[in-house]
Amino acid sequence: MTLTVTVLGATGSIGRSTTDLLTQHAGRFRVGALVGGRDAQGLAKLAREMGAEFAALADESAGPALAEALSGSGIPNGAGEAAVLEAVAREADIVVAAVSGAAGLKPTHAALRLGRTVALANKESLVCAGDAFMRDAARYNARLLPVDSEHNALAQALGHGPVSDVAKMTITASGGPFRTWTRERIAAASATEAAAHPTWSMGMKINIDSASLMNKGLELIEAHHLFGLEPERLDVIVHPQSIVHGLVYWLDGAVTAGLAMPDMRVPIAHCLGLGERLTIARGRSLDLAAAGSLTFEPADEARFPCLRIARAALKDGGAAPTVMNAANEIAVAAFIRGEIAFYGIADLVESACTHFAGIHRTAPADVDEALAIDAEVRAWSEAALPRLRAAG
Amino acid sequence: MTLTVTVLGATGSIGRSTTDLLTQHAGRFRVGALVGGRDAQGLAKLAREMGAEFAALADESAGPALAEALSGSGIPNGAGEAAVLEAVAREADIVVAAVSGAAGLKPTHAALRLGRTVALANKESLVCAGDAFMRDAARYNARLLPVDSEHNALAQALGHGPVSDVAKMTITASGGPFRTWTRERIAAASATEAAAHPTWSMGMKINIDSASLMNKGLELIEAHHLFGLEPERLDVIVHPQSIVHGLVYWLDGAVTAGLAMPDMRVPIAHCLGLGERLTIARGRSLDLAAAGSLTFEPADEARFPCLRIARAALKDGGAAPTVMNAANEIAVAAFIRGEIAFYGIADLVESACTHFAGIHRTAPADVDEALAIDAEVRAWSEAALPRLRAAG
Repeated sequence: MTLTVTVLGATGSIGRSTTDLLTQHAGRFRVGALVGGRDAQGLAKLAREMGAEFAALADESAGPALAEALSGSGIPNGAGEAAVLEAVAREADIVVAAVSGAAGLKPTHAALRLGRTVALANKESLVCAGDAFMRDAARYNARLLPVDSEHNALAQALGHGPVSDVAKMTITASGGPFRTWTRERIAAASATEAAAHPTWSMGMKINIDSASLMNKGLELIEAHHLFGLEPERLDVIVHPQSIVHGLVYWLDGAVTAGLAMPDMRVPIAHCLGLGERLTIARGRSLDLAAAGSLTFEPADEARFPCLRIARAALKDGGAAPTVMNAANEIAVAAFIRGEIAFYGIADLVESACTHFAGIHRTAPADVDEALAIDAEVRAWSEAALPRLRAAG
Repeated sequence: MTLTVTVLGATGSIGRSTTDLLTQHAGRFRVGALVGGRDAQGLAKLAREMGAEFAALADESAGPALAEALSGSGIPNGAGEAAVLEAVAREADIVVAAVSGAAGLKPTHAALRLGRTVALANKESLVCAGDAFMRDAARYNARLLPVDSEHNALAQALGHGPVSDVAKMTITASGGPFRTWTRERIAAASATEAAAHPTWSMGMKINIDSASLMNKGLELIEAHHLFGLEPERLDVIVHPQSIVHGLVYWLDGAVTAGLAMPDMRVPIAHCLGLGERLTIARGRSLDLAAAGSLTFEPADEARFPCLRIARAALKDGGAAPTVMNAANEIAVAAFIRGEIAFYGIADLVESACTHFAGIHRTAPADVDEALAIDAEVRAWSEAALPRLRAAG
């Protein structure tokens, strides 16, 4: 049986890894809809190569360019929110939800409401509206498969074991480029230094989040929702080689772990396989003897306050993770522009969490409410930036 | 529901760990039969403490001592092969098969034929008569749960995944006391040096097997039978910390691993839990940050020829593993007595394998045939010893 796969965020890094696998297993999969952001030429090329059934761009203004680039291909296409939702609404056995940022919430949620099997790479869905997403996944009988290497490793290490038998789940952090730096040196770090990720090749925003360990904080929040584990049973450990991605500690002292070379095609293949294993051409096999040594060290919340802030937001629950994520996006953008220092990110995020703690207490009931809080916190954070710039 | 557990080899190391767990979870388990070797006082004390339903010693001559030690307890008891088989025949939900050596074959096989759930710690059952054991386990609908930490880790890492999706399974070796020694130094090693195991506390014979890596060879043969994997898909890697015990490499590049502190109660608890997890009082939790570093290196078959010999026996199949195991027992005993040098073990085993290759080709059809080959090879090996002594 051929499975139809729709890819939201097709022209991004996860999307490219996905379409690579779909091409390798062309007999097993057919490509449903491909959704991109604003890269008309890139999406059109991909849609032609993959024989997509539909192509859509989120950016409405790029619609004419997409239509022109696809002319003669016979591939129906569109642009703007309606076109994206049309793409999601088309029949698909698996929807890979890899639009990044808050823009990913609506299409991902739409896929859930259709009861789809969703391979989830959009962190913000669970961070900003985790309660609503998990509730609706259950309500509409949708299946959520984690694409993040850490959560995918946890899912593999968990197997069919009940979460009630789990003492603890731990995700690993590479430690980022500042792992061995002093607090003083980190305080003076530039965006270029922060974006130099040691093991993974990712985008600028996520690289900065890796440097601050906010990325791990976001992943703890995701893990909480995905696996239904309380904050106290979730942990982070620094593991510079990025080979062990997640560990499940069982009540009897046994530990199962998910390992792989750092290659996003591995967790994506696990999701696309739906319980079967897909081979990966040109994949690198894990060779532990060649690796020689796997090292582990505690995560240092003194040098990496964003991890502490994220753990607090996870513990506080309600809207705290939504607020934290929005403030972090503004702060990271300001850091990349050189407007604030590295620790200004944590300062702004913590200020926002404190400010909004009394304003938004309960978790967003739906995606619209999550997006409204997101917008409100972004505006407040932008307005708060000048104060930080003065302090920095 | 209370589960009845029978322990074969109750007074040994695995037996003691088992009864520790049974005591900790006294509400969950009741003790069926306890079977020992020849330690009447030890078995009687244990049977009284645990409130066993039956006690038996393999050594018939120890029967009167056992009867006396249990007088007034009301615990029925006996000694000799018939008593051991009577112990096995008593109702039990789980039989822990932890009699060591060839003596474990008959009672373990009897438990299988009764369709029991058998927690298997007796290596020789699968090494000497693996084909017959696996065939009869299937025929009599018995369930085999691996107690060895390596195989238990593999079982946990495999989960419900089909073996057809497995690219490779790897078990780890601590590397033993000679891991960093030169071949010349190993050649001159004493039994005391060889028995100094770095991470596990076990018996003399198994410690020597760990030093020669024969133990890992035996475990590869066990893994072959337990998981139905061809020799080419089985591997050994040296991992001195003994924290990672087994790894399953999947076709998609993902790897799942079983980890735990070196404590036999962990895999035993996994077996006794029958899919649920039992807590372990006074167990040490794995702390990777405290461990700091997990290291891996290739197993060196030049310095550890027993591993090469065992891999060849596994590949040859038929009666080769049976022959190898018997010759190894005689060789290790001679080495412990100081009669042959350390590499004399490999020399004797290889001679036996070569000698018997043309005599016993097919795998033993049943336990009796395995024991007959075992006896024949032992006699031949004993007779071959003087030649080795002269050469050494």
